[in-house]
Amino acid sequence: MSSKSVPTARRLRVFDSTLRDGEQAPGNAMNPDQKLELALAIEATGVDTIEAGFPSSSPRDFEATRLIAGALTTAKVATLNRAVRADIELAAEAGGVERHQVQIMATGSDVHLEHKRGLTRAEGLHEIIDSIRFARELGFTDITLGIEDASRGSDDLLRPMIEAGIEEGASTVALADTTGCLIPAEFGAQVARVRSWIPDHIILSTHCHQDLGLSLANALAGVEAGADEVQATIAGIGERAGNTPLEELAAVLLYKGEQLGLTSRLRTEKFYEAYQLLARIIGMSTPRNKAIFGENAFATQAGIHQAGMLRNPVTYEYVEPHSFGRERGILIGRHSGRNVVRNLFDQMGIGAERDLLDEIYETYIAGRADGTCIELGELREIIAERLARTTEMAVAS
Amino acid sequence: MSSKSVPTARRLRVFDSTLRDGEQAPGNAMNPDQKLELALAIEATGVDTIEAGFPSSSPRDFEATRLIAGALTTAKVATLNRAVRADIELAAEAGGVERHQVQIMATGSDVHLEHKRGLTRAEGLHEIIDSIRFARELGFTDITLGIEDASRGSDDLLRPMIEAGIEEGASTVALADTTGCLIPAEFGAQVARVRSWIPDHIILSTHCHQDLGLSLANALAGVEAGADEVQATIAGIGERAGNTPLEELAAVLLYKGEQLGLTSRLRTEKFYEAYQLLARIIGMSTPRNKAIFGENAFATQAGIHQAGMLRNPVTYEYVEPHSFGRERGILIGRHSGRNVVRNLFDQMGIGAERDLLDEIYETYIAGRADGTCIELGELREIIAERLARTTEMAVAS
Repeated sequence: MSSKSVPTARRLRVFDSTLRDGEQAPGNAMNPDQKLELALAIEATGVDTIEAGFPSSSPRDFEATRLIAGALTTAKVATLNRAVRADIELAAEAGGVERHQVQIMATGSDVHLEHKRGLTRAEGLHEIIDSIRFARELGFTDITLGIEDASRGSDDLLRPMIEAGIEEGASTVALADTTGCLIPAEFGAQVARVRSWIPDHIILSTHCHQDLGLSLANALAGVEAGADEVQATIAGIGERAGNTPLEELAAVLLYKGEQLGLTSRLRTEKFYEAYQLLARIIGMSTPRNKAIFGENAFATQAGIHQAGMLRNPVTYEYVEPHSFGRERGILIGRHSGRNVVRNLFDQMGIGAERDLLDEIYETYIAGRADGTCIELGELREIIAERLARTTEMAVAS
Repeated sequence: MSSKSVPTARRLRVFDSTLRDGEQAPGNAMNPDQKLELALAIEATGVDTIEAGFPSSSPRDFEATRLIAGALTTAKVATLNRAVRADIELAAEAGGVERHQVQIMATGSDVHLEHKRGLTRAEGLHEIIDSIRFARELGFTDITLGIEDASRGSDDLLRPMIEAGIEEGASTVALADTTGCLIPAEFGAQVARVRSWIPDHIILSTHCHQDLGLSLANALAGVEAGADEVQATIAGIGERAGNTPLEELAAVLLYKGEQLGLTSRLRTEKFYEAYQLLARIIGMSTPRNKAIFGENAFATQAGIHQAGMLRNPVTYEYVEPHSFGRERGILIGRHSGRNVVRNLFDQMGIGAERDLLDEIYETYIAGRADGTCIELGELREIIAERLARTTEMAVAS
């Protein structure tokens, strides 16, 4: 409210690409009804924009776009399109021209111009001008120049492309590190250069890939260098190694937003529901070790960790499970210590039953033949049952 | 060879923690023979050090340490130990004192001192001094002061601890971001401060976690700020969200090493074998979208991507599959285009069989009811069979 020393926080825009880049990767295909259901769950997480698909790629993507455009109430729909009139016409037919961010794909590197498209630079520039102009004629006002393979594009290719795109009416420029080839310092430097070429009111967006394991760090470096938006997907699903994981971005914004001068509208407590729906729809199993959504993201088995967690979760927990709609897990397995049994005995009001403690430790911890674990709650039930049996026997005898 | 402008590359040390931090997470427990087998596969990847386990935590970890210490020939063995004499004595018994990096865990934050250990700062300092002195007396020369929760430790807690540890004979200081709570700028700044306190010959190591999805970026920021070593695990397995993934670090060193001024001894072509062995031993399924080891890390289904890949893989490939012992995959599914069938027809010397092309496209691409895919090779066989049948029928009629 006061204080000149606190800079005003910028609101970071969040663009969800789960239903487009995520969905196009092998194994992740969804039908229109599934996409619609998931779009609503994603909307509940508070993202600004939901990319419904690539309408020209198939009748299914067209239909999904139609359904999602008609159903979203707080998020805006977006589509992916090639820089050809037919694609843009179909996008308009599927999602209308109001509250619809039409993304037009530019070919952003000489590698792609030559080896994928067989186009000259002049042809690559011309298709952008023509298609953005056409989109405006159709009535679109929210037009993105999405630059594929921008991370391998030279400035003298990209700058005329971006300037022409804005001149024709693009209001957003999205830079894609399509092959995931950059490290944060490189991506940040490119974003800073592009930022210096374009007016402040043009939205600059990042689209990063995980091939080097740096998609989030790259996106954050881009934001620090002046990007306004991050394109991300739930659980990072997407081409090859995937995209920037939405939930990791959300965790950084939740815990580091203030120091980074960033705010967002994300509701992290809605994330796990959306993830579970996604996993169910595409039949994706959950990895053990993965930030936020992993089976073990909030679970611990090691004795040293459990000793701390049982006294105070803050000892080994920074990201809080409840903030993401998850639960903390204390798992009992071969790496758990006597401590966790002792702690459970204390909680259950069991005194110095040394023999029972040894027996439980030997059976359920030290003597466990495989790498499996049971929940702390299950161990509690086992102990309660054992005690009840002992009491019964004492009474019977 | 010449040129003053090229700075001498530093050799980054790589410390593998798959068998310790990786193994202690729920579901990942291994027996000593499995650990030994995996240790040898990890050694083949060219890492400098392999952490065999925490000998005092269980007879199994003791035995695994004994086996691995006796078997390694190029990598050095390391162990994790609490700052107590009994642990260090057991570590010496398990792995000897030669070519054995004994890591002694210091409690690096007030949060851990108070809520986990119930110790004063003076007691935390005393246990380090006593245990490092004891390790030297036993004959250890390769002693690491491993600082747990260092990322939440204040300088006035850490500096006396580190200075005393080095004074007593520690030759390595490992800073652990135990809860995964830092972003790269923060971790880099801490590493730079610690670097400024300690002599050049002391090895400074990073141990980062993936809770915010930034473990690799944090480790790299640490290295840039003066760290000499990165602790990592295969596939990033480890506590909660896991650790810095070894394979992602290797990819960055392979492709960006020169510009970062870093070299390593890693042999990336050996990585996939080690990963497959790990996955088999701990029964871990492979995620679709994950850098280097993911099912889709080098596979594509989308028509636009395949059109480029079939002309030249460089269009959508930065990390090369063969450099990591993997194969490129062209998967046929609902997002593939007509292009891929046309390309296959050309390769097979099939002319303008328009009807067959339509039929194949409708059956195996557009009409596919679910999200599954088949390999390009399978589609080739299907087409060859279809053609053979047609020819037979033509001959028969």
